[in-house]
Amino acid sequence: MEERVRELARAVRPPDGAAAGAARERHRRLIKPPGSLGALEELGARLAAMAGECPPPVPEHPAVVVAAGDHGVLARGVSPWPQEVTAAMVAGFCSGGAAVNAIAEAVGARVSVLDVGVASPLQPHPRLRSAKVRPGTRDISREAAMSREEAARAVISGAGIAGELVESGADLLVTGDMGIGNTTPAAALVAAFTGRPAREVTGRGTGIDDDTFRLKVRVIEQALELHGPETADALGVAAALGGLEHAALAGVILEGAARRVPVILDGIAANAAALVARYLAPECAGYMVAGHLSAEPGAGAALKHLGLEPLLDLGMRLGEGTGGLLAAPLVRAAAAVLARMDTFESAGIAEG
Amino acid sequence: MEERVRELARAVRPPDGAAAGAARERHRRLIKPPGSLGALEELGARLAAMAGECPPPVPEHPAVVVAAGDHGVLARGVSPWPQEVTAAMVAGFCSGGAAVNAIAEAVGARVSVLDVGVASPLQPHPRLRSAKVRPGTRDISREAAMSREEAARAVISGAGIAGELVESGADLLVTGDMGIGNTTPAAALVAAFTGRPAREVTGRGTGIDDDTFRLKVRVIEQALELHGPETADALGVAAALGGLEHAALAGVILEGAARRVPVILDGIAANAAALVARYLAPECAGYMVAGHLSAEPGAGAALKHLGLEPLLDLGMRLGEGTGGLLAAPLVRAAAAVLARMDTFESAGIAEG
Repeated sequence: MEERVRELARAVRPPDGAAAGAARERHRRLIKPPGSLGALEELGARLAAMAGECPPPVPEHPAVVVAAGDHGVLARGVSPWPQEVTAAMVAGFCSGGAAVNAIAEAVGARVSVLDVGVASPLQPHPRLRSAKVRPGTRDISREAAMSREEAARAVISGAGIAGELVESGADLLVTGDMGIGNTTPAAALVAAFTGRPAREVTGRGTGIDDDTFRLKVRVIEQALELHGPETADALGVAAALGGLEHAALAGVILEGAARRVPVILDGIAANAAALVARYLAPECAGYMVAGHLSAEPGAGAALKHLGLEPLLDLGMRLGEGTGGLLAAPLVRAAAAVLARMDTFESAGIAEG
Repeated sequence: MEERVRELARAVRPPDGAAAGAARERHRRLIKPPGSLGALEELGARLAAMAGECPPPVPEHPAVVVAAGDHGVLARGVSPWPQEVTAAMVAGFCSGGAAVNAIAEAVGARVSVLDVGVASPLQPHPRLRSAKVRPGTRDISREAAMSREEAARAVISGAGIAGELVESGADLLVTGDMGIGNTTPAAALVAAFTGRPAREVTGRGTGIDDDTFRLKVRVIEQALELHGPETADALGVAAALGGLEHAALAGVILEGAARRVPVILDGIAANAAALVARYLAPECAGYMVAGHLSAEPGAGAALKHLGLEPLLDLGMRLGEGTGGLLAAPLVRAAAAVLARMDTFESAGIAEG
């Protein structure tokens, strides 16, 4: 299975710098003052680089993959929510009553749910893909979260669902996550890959008090000390410190990148997964779009390390893909500007 | 005509605080940690207040009104673009090749164009409403831009098209503008209503050099000194310093507010128009959504004065409604969250 991850990583080609250059040049000829669309212009150039053509295709069929898993480290008391909520929320994603469903509908996106590691049993549902690698990870502060083989299986499961979505028409992928306690392994991954201390990249997740916060930082410090992660072995880092959903989302990102489809990152879980993907295949960062800046402090650190500027900053910290989905219309608009606007020449307008 | 503006202002009722309270309470019961959707939650509460019900209706049919006019002050050399570009861009909005068209299509919005003061002749088009009050304003640095009667006519024209859009199904209005040179009167309006000095609220518009920037500040200072604007007479301020499109957009905002329909503000032209509307009818600020923070310095000053937090900050400075349109999916999402999510009780999930 590790060999399949290496193959997937090798399939990621560098974004096309010439297409980005053509997009920047085209932006100067469109009927607007140069630079007046701000960050939307550089986003358009990046989309051209991802697609390898200018103008880039205008994404019309966004799809979010919500990867779900449970976390052995929850036993340390890092979250006030019980583990059973992971499965309950997966049921919510399937029945359509969660935030990700409401927001996906608002922006015209499909929702798929991927179980790579939920501890509780789940009811089958057409929207739910069962690819359970193990029923939750082990406690990262005491042992490796999972074996390398298990991490690789989660990566390949994420890649698999991403590939099928693209085959069936998705042209813009969004990462989503669910897993009670999963900001703890996410912060551990961010600390491991960015080299920042645990206390700088640890946040309050979905809401914890000061004592729990101090405990969470200590737990992450213990995990980092125990495993001594080496970024050159990204799969090993993911296996030691990560969650199954982080590994799966790394697979979603790698598969999107290999297929030259933009992948919008949601919050801290996605940012942690993006670091795993980036250290497996450096070029894949060129296919990532930072949908928003999560309120979790590790998010900003991860995005900075990846060289990505977030599109939105709304103080969101829910996960599920909600913040990433909100950026989908911005991505569509950035491509549409390049694809559909007239040039000064074609419109017969004199430039200022 | 002034009496009709006063009637319109009186038709704006205060937003419904009880509905906002019900939305905040509902947010605590939805299947997510309280507060985890950040600014989207308070936006939802504001939408409930605007609609007077919780959950608020989910807007499905956004419509942008691009009000267009020319500016006598252009003769002072405040912009590198010739006046004829206003008419050429209006033709672009009609044929569908401008940025506003590309972005409106990307977010599923209709585009209407309102000519309240373009100097050059315009070809008729189904998308273009002709309501020319005068062929451009006079030079605000030397005389009043227009008469009070003309300003009132422009306000009523804006209100008229907004009312017709709502009657024909629009449930979310977005302000757009076109007018070569119109950041000069916009900055003058912002200075007049916020009391800030011209140099603090003047920007480089679509792109000017240092000399032109200094000239622009001086021209605005001259206009403020000449007219000695009094905010208690908002129509008088608009007539003295404004553009016809700013007056028209104030009408769009007032009509939206009177009909309890949210109005998304685009950039500096909209922010200036919003100040006019706010000083005509203080409660109308409750129906405004700040779509984005324009790169123009006056935008932040105006929004702060209005008590509004922008949803996006992408360094945009084009106008046309482009930045406002990008916020339409966020407004839709904020309403959808309240309208479509399950509660912990309905989903049978224990709270953390």
